[in-house]
Amino acid sequence: MDPNERTRNERTRNERTRPSHTWPGHLFVSARAGRIRERHAPAGKFLDMALLADTIAAITPLDTDAMGAARARQATLTKPAGSLGPLEDLSIQLAGIAGACPPPVPEHPVVVVFAADHGVHAQGVSPWPQEVTAQMVANFLAGGAVINVLARRVGADVVVVDAGVATSIPAVPGSTSRILSRAVRAGTADLSTGPAMERSEAEAAVEVGIAVAAELIAEGADCLLTGDMGIANTTASAALIAAFTGTDPTAVTGRGTGIDDDTLRLKTDIIARALARHAPDPSDGLGVLAAVGGLEHAGIAGLILGAAAHGIPVVLDGVIADAAALVAKSLCPVALAYAVAGHRSAEPAAAISLTHLGLRPLLDLDLRLGEGSGAALALPLVQSAALVLRDVASFADAGVSEA
Amino acid sequence: MDPNERTRNERTRNERTRPSHTWPGHLFVSARAGRIRERHAPAGKFLDMALLADTIAAITPLDTDAMGAARARQATLTKPAGSLGPLEDLSIQLAGIAGACPPPVPEHPVVVVFAADHGVHAQGVSPWPQEVTAQMVANFLAGGAVINVLARRVGADVVVVDAGVATSIPAVPGSTSRILSRAVRAGTADLSTGPAMERSEAEAAVEVGIAVAAELIAEGADCLLTGDMGIANTTASAALIAAFTGTDPTAVTGRGTGIDDDTLRLKTDIIARALARHAPDPSDGLGVLAAVGGLEHAGIAGLILGAAAHGIPVVLDGVIADAAALVAKSLCPVALAYAVAGHRSAEPAAAISLTHLGLRPLLDLDLRLGEGSGAALALPLVQSAALVLRDVASFADAGVSEA
Repeated sequence: MDPNERTRNERTRNERTRPSHTWPGHLFVSARAGRIRERHAPAGKFLDMALLADTIAAITPLDTDAMGAARARQATLTKPAGSLGPLEDLSIQLAGIAGACPPPVPEHPVVVVFAADHGVHAQGVSPWPQEVTAQMVANFLAGGAVINVLARRVGADVVVVDAGVATSIPAVPGSTSRILSRAVRAGTADLSTGPAMERSEAEAAVEVGIAVAAELIAEGADCLLTGDMGIANTTASAALIAAFTGTDPTAVTGRGTGIDDDTLRLKTDIIARALARHAPDPSDGLGVLAAVGGLEHAGIAGLILGAAAHGIPVVLDGVIADAAALVAKSLCPVALAYAVAGHRSAEPAAAISLTHLGLRPLLDLDLRLGEGSGAALALPLVQSAALVLRDVASFADAGVSEA
Repeated sequence: MDPNERTRNERTRNERTRPSHTWPGHLFVSARAGRIRERHAPAGKFLDMALLADTIAAITPLDTDAMGAARARQATLTKPAGSLGPLEDLSIQLAGIAGACPPPVPEHPVVVVFAADHGVHAQGVSPWPQEVTAQMVANFLAGGAVINVLARRVGADVVVVDAGVATSIPAVPGSTSRILSRAVRAGTADLSTGPAMERSEAEAAVEVGIAVAAELIAEGADCLLTGDMGIANTTASAALIAAFTGTDPTAVTGRGTGIDDDTLRLKTDIIARALARHAPDPSDGLGVLAAVGGLEHAGIAGLILGAAAHGIPVVLDGVIADAAALVAKSLCPVALAYAVAGHRSAEPAAAISLTHLGLRPLLDLDLRLGEGSGAALALPLVQSAALVLRDVASFADAGVSEA
């Protein structure tokens, strides 16, 4: 049996070993099991430090009974067996996540855009001024960015999390989106001259993502989409991906939002030297994150863990999310069973990390925007996969002969 | 000066060379120019034989002024230049099709499912009984097929065209979709023993697609999606694609909806022998279509030409549409400027034909269902491409610094 799968009986057994009444106040147990949900108090720097461990402990493998039922139901639908390819696999995954066949169609998706700055920006790895992170946060709040336009189309809310923006965010009169101020620190330190953050800060920043997931799910979110904003964050992403996958910096480093050959050489060299300096241990997710990661990577890793603990799907955006997913996988491999890769970004590190994660992306359009744009564009495919399993007629009901 | 003015003048000049009052009754001129639109009379076997020639004559290249304006507008939007990859190209194409920047967002899409049977079915190239074509038409009308579920999700109507179904279509009480009975003949003849149809029938069947496009656009359709249903139609598709691209039958022949090794060998051999027998001339679109094509291929080719003549985009489904697009390209190369490839199907001939057509598919998910499913799944990407160009804030308006 696949180690990521489990039967209902096993889950019940697991639950008995961790009675929910012994958990901390911010309960975030599986929504699908109909267990206790409680609104988390606004989280700041000083989170209950058991949150990460408790979240990981609450994540269970997918429900194999529901997956088997979904696989069997697919075979009865009026279409050639397997003709919807990976969308059939996705429908089976969604059934395993929900513990139900057919699984619910995600109708209350939320894009969570984690915004943060990077000390390594000082090294000149990006042509964009650092202030653009804060300016784009204001653009998200005003509803004018690409992610706002794409999210509106698919009926998704956009929630911005200030996970560590270094400069002040311009005031936005008549803001259409919500911002949660959850900065553990105001941007990372320069990873080329020292660790990006303390280990305790990395853990707290992951817990920010967990807490945000809990809040949004308590409010009704049934699918989370990862988003990010942070000038210079493809540098930290490439460093994370090189560290976790053991890939050479020259292979993972890309042009991000568009840099010239000289800057690409500089960026690659900075990543290579940072890895040599920190020698991060890929089996230590928090250690790698603290050494070369970003606060938005931490938040996204926490969002993935939080979604998994609650039993709802999380759609990954591009290379920043892929790097964060490697952090999440290092902390809790089974959590990735709840993840759907929205797309494969144009950054070379994206394909490398998706292969390492074992995820097939839904879209492959050379996107390199971030913000959650690729996840939002992929969402209709996720919804369609669930809809087909729920609504298509069977051969028997439709009176169609089989092959 | 209005950036579109020069092109408008040119178009006026073009029109003078083909005065509209000399055209046949079913006028179907470019919708974008606001010219005459007239409801086409229900079309049957005996169409005005000038329709095809007049349609081809009405197809103009894309509006380069609108495309230039779209390209310039993309550069002002708050995102790194080029970061939405082929979706930016698509927005520019849509501007060129509409002759306007930003182009309208398609909000009244219609999936047109051309259903027809194939004489070559008698050779045992498919495991499915021929009656399944008619049974699936009934399933479409009852709203239970995959295309119904996907089209509902994206707000698209489904219109079924009986382009040549060989067996009787089961009655459907409470049908939710419309069927247009436009069969030029009740299925093709066996392409392995003679031509699939007469040349005049091929032309009439293309004109069915043209007329359907005209009707639907007159009713308000602003984007057409191709669909198909026809047991054994991957055999005819592979033969068409081999003929138009000069590819060896072993390279284009695939497993369709799922055949075993013996049937694959039989299918490949039949295609090879048919091509040897007919020796179709790839520069003669109607000749190739008559020799080895299907009535649904003809209808889809006509739909592409009709959409192009009216100046609206047409989203292609999979390998059957790709084969039909090769017919359309042979008849009128510029018509393909109005086409968007929804996806690359799992059939090997799909990649070959898309390369030949110069189209980059939006999705690449190993789909092999047909019905228009891949086009419907891709539609949100087409709409999103137009929405981004229309709605995203500029750097200047959002107060965001540039790189």
